[in-house]
Amino acid sequence: MPKVSQEHLERRRQQILDAATDCFARHGFHATSMQEIFRASGLSAGAVYRYFPSKNSLIKAIAENVVNEVLTPAIDAISGQRLDPADALASIAVIFKPGGLRARTLPVSVQMWAESFRDPEMADLARDMIDRISKLLAQVLPPGSPPEAVRLIMAALQGFAVQSGVLEDVTPELVAAASRAFAAPQKDASQKQE
Amino acid sequence: MPKVSQEHLERRRQQILDAATDCFARHGFHATSMQEIFRASGLSAGAVYRYFPSKNSLIKAIAENVVNEVLTPAIDAISGQRLDPADALASIAVIFKPGGLRARTLPVSVQMWAESFRDPEMADLARDMIDRISKLLAQVLPPGSPPEAVRLIMAALQGFAVQSGVLEDVTPELVAAASRAFAAPQKDASQKQE
Repeated sequence: MPKVSQEHLERRRQQILDAATDCFARHGFHATSMQEIFRASGLSAGAVYRYFPSKNSLIKAIAENVVNEVLTPAIDAISGQRLDPADALASIAVIFKPGGLRARTLPVSVQMWAESFRDPEMADLARDMIDRISKLLAQVLPPGSPPEAVRLIMAALQGFAVQSGVLEDVTPELVAAASRAFAAPQKDASQKQE
Repeated sequence: MPKVSQEHLERRRQQILDAATDCFARHGFHATSMQEIFRASGLSAGAVYRYFPSKNSLIKAIAENVVNEVLTPAIDAISGQRLDPADALASIAVIFKPGGLRARTLPVSVQMWAESFRDPEMADLARDMIDRISKLLAQVLPPGSPPEAVRLIMAALQGFAVQSGVLEDVTPELVAAASRAFAAPQKDASQKQE
């Protein structure tokens, strides 16, 4: 019997995650059954359960993908630059580029947050994600930055994720402009003193 | 037959909304049936349907209550002060006081946002709420403020609402500190030049 390659396993895992992301985004987390995920992925129950024993384990893997493959690279791209919080948020706003994170995984993230108010497992997952992202963010701000600055960057990213569900204009440009406009009055004041 | 007073009607309406808010917050929007809302409110189906013909109409009334009774007073309290965006957000953060908005209606708001990604009626409601709050916010900023500043205040309020589901420390003090820390580097720079 030929040995199943690591690459094959990873491809199959991603195939299931893609199908689940589509189902959750389209019908919601509660209204999606594991049966629908088997069907959408084109795989048997046994094949899917081998990778993901439950809907919660699928949500968890989708959330981890967002952190590892979208947020982490966007934050890494400004590592070492020690930007002010407003400029850091403006740079990370690249995650809102149309066709990126937006269409597929954002609805699932917002569902996870809604669930976290009453499902302890989802709350643990949301807390863990916020914690991991906050640590990454703290590293790109200037040394000695107040830790609360990270909380506002985090909140803004979550809030724009929410807004992207109903407003077409949530783009990297809009988020960057909003970030700088929020901090701008101080900038203007300092320019006048030069 | 005695005429039913306006006050009585309003009290009964609020009784239904309170019951629905509790049900949605505890079990989620999808898992709550109208039957459970009849039971929780202690009223008959006929009595409830007289005020609210559907679950969506209940969600809409709850969202309107949040805007009219919590957000509008918090924003009105700083009207005429023409605060910088960071100070405006720090003031409006009073909505996160423990025991206020937080425990009951925030979970319902976040559910509405999650639904808005695929339910056109919820999307219209969310868009309308964002629009109304944005107009109120624009009035408290200094004349000529860039409109994008309002979008960041809005996003931060939504993001902290999301965070409050899993983090105990989302208080008016934390949100105010986060708001000022985000804009602080510019403030520090201008102070050094004085």
